[in-house]
Amino acid sequence: MTTTPAIILVTPQLPENIGSAARAMLNFGLTDLRLVRPRVPAWPNERARATASGADSLLQGARTFETVGEAVAGLTRVYATTWRNRELVKWIATPRQAAAEMRERAAAGERAGVLFGPERTGLLSDDLAFADAIVTVPINPAFPSLNLAQAVLLVAYEWFQAGDATPPRRLQRGASPPADRAEFANFLRRLTLYLDESGFFHPPEKRDHMIRNLEAFFVRGEPTEQELRTLHGVIKTLRYRRDR
Amino acid sequence: MTTTPAIILVTPQLPENIGSAARAMLNFGLTDLRLVRPRVPAWPNERARATASGADSLLQGARTFETVGEAVAGLTRVYATTWRNRELVKWIATPRQAAAEMRERAAAGERAGVLFGPERTGLLSDDLAFADAIVTVPINPAFPSLNLAQAVLLVAYEWFQAGDATPPRRLQRGASPPADRAEFANFLRRLTLYLDESGFFHPPEKRDHMIRNLEAFFVRGEPTEQELRTLHGVIKTLRYRRDR
Repeated sequence: MTTTPAIILVTPQLPENIGSAARAMLNFGLTDLRLVRPRVPAWPNERARATASGADSLLQGARTFETVGEAVAGLTRVYATTWRNRELVKWIATPRQAAAEMRERAAAGERAGVLFGPERTGLLSDDLAFADAIVTVPINPAFPSLNLAQAVLLVAYEWFQAGDATPPRRLQRGASPPADRAEFANFLRRLTLYLDESGFFHPPEKRDHMIRNLEAFFVRGEPTEQELRTLHGVIKTLRYRRDR
Repeated sequence: MTTTPAIILVTPQLPENIGSAARAMLNFGLTDLRLVRPRVPAWPNERARATASGADSLLQGARTFETVGEAVAGLTRVYATTWRNRELVKWIATPRQAAAEMRERAAAGERAGVLFGPERTGLLSDDLAFADAIVTVPINPAFPSLNLAQAVLLVAYEWFQAGDATPPRRLQRGASPPADRAEFANFLRRLTLYLDESGFFHPPEKRDHMIRNLEAFFVRGEPTEQELRTLHGVIKTLRYRRDR
């Protein structure tokens, strides 16, 4: 079991944002929510729970702390999210890089945490002191305002992607298996035959080139057995129509 | 100027989601918003504009269409976002892969679009027919519900990242330039001298190893000129105190 990063919200103001952050965390497999002095009327909070919808178990397990120092106990690596240019000399990482680093540390049994500041002001310099690196999302400089839950979403998303083995591109198949290539060659022979019969290849010296292009098109579609049967039917029907 | 992908919201139900989607788009440099039969009382809509905050110019430029077929006019590549398992035989791409593909096509002057279905039901099979590939976000299978604006955010985020050259990790410097390595060597020599004077290296045969470890620690911090001056002050002060 991988140790997952803690998400630490420092003095969040709106319960809805805590709820949305909890949802975003659970979407991407994070469960350790820590709150530093939440500025909400009463905690646990009903509005936060309503926004969290299915993720309210995560809210119930959230721990609250008085200081950032207490909230980072148990962690060996701390990131702080902010897009403001700070005067501190600090490493700045993209969310993707931070995710890769946290994954590598998690594999060694270490636990990381990511600090998020309050909605309007962001993290204070005092809070940044705890951070090994600042995480800044590369964003449109003309419109850089991300809300709290969106920032949590992007960090959690990158964490999940860094450990996910889904192929970037895959073919989703229906009930029918892919066509055997011999069946496929059979279809292409038949198509060529019909086209020869109807005098499609004109001028004749372009015939081979035109056949190769048609083959390339049909191969690109990677037909299933069912689709190949349908295609056989299509060309047969069109051909008979032509003969009538 | 790169042609940026169009975001096409099919029968969105809540004006707030259209507004949030517009914000997420502008955050990551997308501006072409298309709406297919928005199910909102009146369009343009005041609640959408309030949620979009700074991105309301993008809402004003949004075009509405009666059908998906009309909305994809002018595009040469179409993606459809859905996490449902559909029966169609379709390519499925991650948002990252789709972004890389759209960037490559945009470089050749092509324009892509991404379809997003209505909040509760997602896209219909009829709408998927237009899509070259389905985009599915790899997500926690136990809690896969992403809201509309979050899905738009992730697609827009990946588009921006695919064209962004920010180094994954960089050192943010304050006003002081990095220390010349000769100055740095000078500091380490002084530190070693003081430690020798105070009998720190014990047992003596471990001296070289201990020095190398200390050097490695101080190098890792990549001190600035200012920090090196401060460190000189620190060891000088501690040493004088010890002599008193």
